[in-house]
Amino acid sequence: MFIGIDLGGTAIKGVLTDKTGAVKSFNKIQTGLGAEVIVYNILKLINILINKRSEHSRISAIGIGCAGSIDKEKGSVIQSPNIPGLQNYPLARAVEKLTGIRTCLENDAAVAVIGEMWVGYGRQFSNWIMITLGTGIGGGLVIDNKIYTGRYGSSMEIGHTSIDYKGRKCPCGNTGCLEAYASATALLKYAKSLLRKYPNSSLRKRMNTGKLEARIIAEEALCGDPLSKFVFERVSEWLGIGVANLVNIFSPEAIIFGGGLSNAHSIILPIVKKTVDERALNGLKENIKYLRIKNEDKTPSLGAAKYAMDLFK
Amino acid sequence: MFIGIDLGGTAIKGVLTDKTGAVKSFNKIQTGLGAEVIVYNILKLINILINKRSEHSRISAIGIGCAGSIDKEKGSVIQSPNIPGLQNYPLARAVEKLTGIRTCLENDAAVAVIGEMWVGYGRQFSNWIMITLGTGIGGGLVIDNKIYTGRYGSSMEIGHTSIDYKGRKCPCGNTGCLEAYASATALLKYAKSLLRKYPNSSLRKRMNTGKLEARIIAEEALCGDPLSKFVFERVSEWLGIGVANLVNIFSPEAIIFGGGLSNAHSIILPIVKKTVDERALNGLKENIKYLRIKNEDKTPSLGAAKYAMDLFK
Repeated sequence: MFIGIDLGGTAIKGVLTDKTGAVKSFNKIQTGLGAEVIVYNILKLINILINKRSEHSRISAIGIGCAGSIDKEKGSVIQSPNIPGLQNYPLARAVEKLTGIRTCLENDAAVAVIGEMWVGYGRQFSNWIMITLGTGIGGGLVIDNKIYTGRYGSSMEIGHTSIDYKGRKCPCGNTGCLEAYASATALLKYAKSLLRKYPNSSLRKRMNTGKLEARIIAEEALCGDPLSKFVFERVSEWLGIGVANLVNIFSPEAIIFGGGLSNAHSIILPIVKKTVDERALNGLKENIKYLRIKNEDKTPSLGAAKYAMDLFK
Repeated sequence: MFIGIDLGGTAIKGVLTDKTGAVKSFNKIQTGLGAEVIVYNILKLINILINKRSEHSRISAIGIGCAGSIDKEKGSVIQSPNIPGLQNYPLARAVEKLTGIRTCLENDAAVAVIGEMWVGYGRQFSNWIMITLGTGIGGGLVIDNKIYTGRYGSSMEIGHTSIDYKGRKCPCGNTGCLEAYASATALLKYAKSLLRKYPNSSLRKRMNTGKLEARIIAEEALCGDPLSKFVFERVSEWLGIGVANLVNIFSPEAIIFGGGLSNAHSIILPIVKKTVDERALNGLKENIKYLRIKNEDKTPSLGAAKYAMDLFK
């Protein structure tokens, strides 16, 4: 048995699985702030997944996918703009020490790619891109059926490609980063900034009953709320601008969208496609499949488990 | 013997070579306007290269590298923003018909990559990027020692990645394209637009004795002319912004710069490196080699010859 963890800026998700990719148990928990709290929450999640103490000995390995740039060999986070407490933190070693189970670390979008190749749509294509739309924006790249990871085990930080060099400041230090325009965080911020202009928006009512979230804006956009629709249209167009850059670079067979915001795929993907068709070059943009990850909740964690499975076999 | 042609927006360069990559003859000619004129100029260049009619029969194949998106299988240009007359033009077939020699077509940056892998610095790295700075900006990508070409034989159109989605209009239809900021064309245009502000610039004197060219601005920048220096600094910074995006995507071992403007590498490359260091992510931007193509004049044509050699063997 293997445990796979998907560590994002907002939530930690986990699965208990076997060599076939069957989900024995699944759960999620809030990420929390600071390295110690995050490690504590990972251990808590693992305990929930395992359920009985007797099962602990049956776990062969733990794989963790984490947002940001990763040193795979050391199992440490180099920089994670959306999980600031983890800079230069040896996350795999910390979890390994406290559980006694071999643990490895990869980039979150890379494990989403591994998962999608294992149990999702990834097997249908040789050259494709994964884009994860969550607190930040991550990316994964498959070339000739192999994941490209760059020199240090991490690359495709497409959330930190600039679409406006004089544009919005990004916590990473750059300006105009795609994730400052098209992540769930950016969507939420943009909607809040426009609330005044839309006094009748149903988002106002929703805010009376709880915190505003990207998920709620998606729900209201689908119900026809003008503010929510406007925000999604603009954000999807910005995303499309970043995707058009990738299309001109890769001319991929498919682009698969994961992350929490990909639940709103029915609003986002048609606008992304339209923007790419307007902006990318003839001869590169044709016949691209725009898909949503097969199982947004579980595929990345399954990919993390699969990564551990292959690494420690 | 093989002929390699490098077809750019301004000049057509050609080599006559053998299986070892030795340059038997080299020459260049102006590109000209319109498909017929370009084909005529290619034939003229081939005749200059061959010299004696008796040598014609010893040519096994012709390889052409052309700026823009290319359909390799058909040997035709799909779209070439800087050589407008070639849209959907079956260039390889036209040359083949008129010479009676087998002819093939590839993207100009791709042949620069092939050349650099054959007779340049390319062999030293497994994962690297080629950036050609000429009339436009082209790109080539090597992953695991293999050239990545995308689905239709063309990709890495990094000149058409946007660094400012509300920015300068590009002939390709997109806005904010890198080549609208950092190509030789953009450099020249930018310098001209600032001439009024620099009444004492030595560029004014140079314009009295002939047409202003990017090459002249580079010469004057190296001599300390304030306008020329300013223009090169800004253009190199814009280029660095585009390169930082590529570094966050690929984390390459090396970036090799070709094209006419790469002759000014001593001015451009330090500023590109500085900009990448300021903008790209920790863990991705370290220890990248910034190099100039080994032989800007001949390497791309040699790559085109090598492409033909391997394709028709």
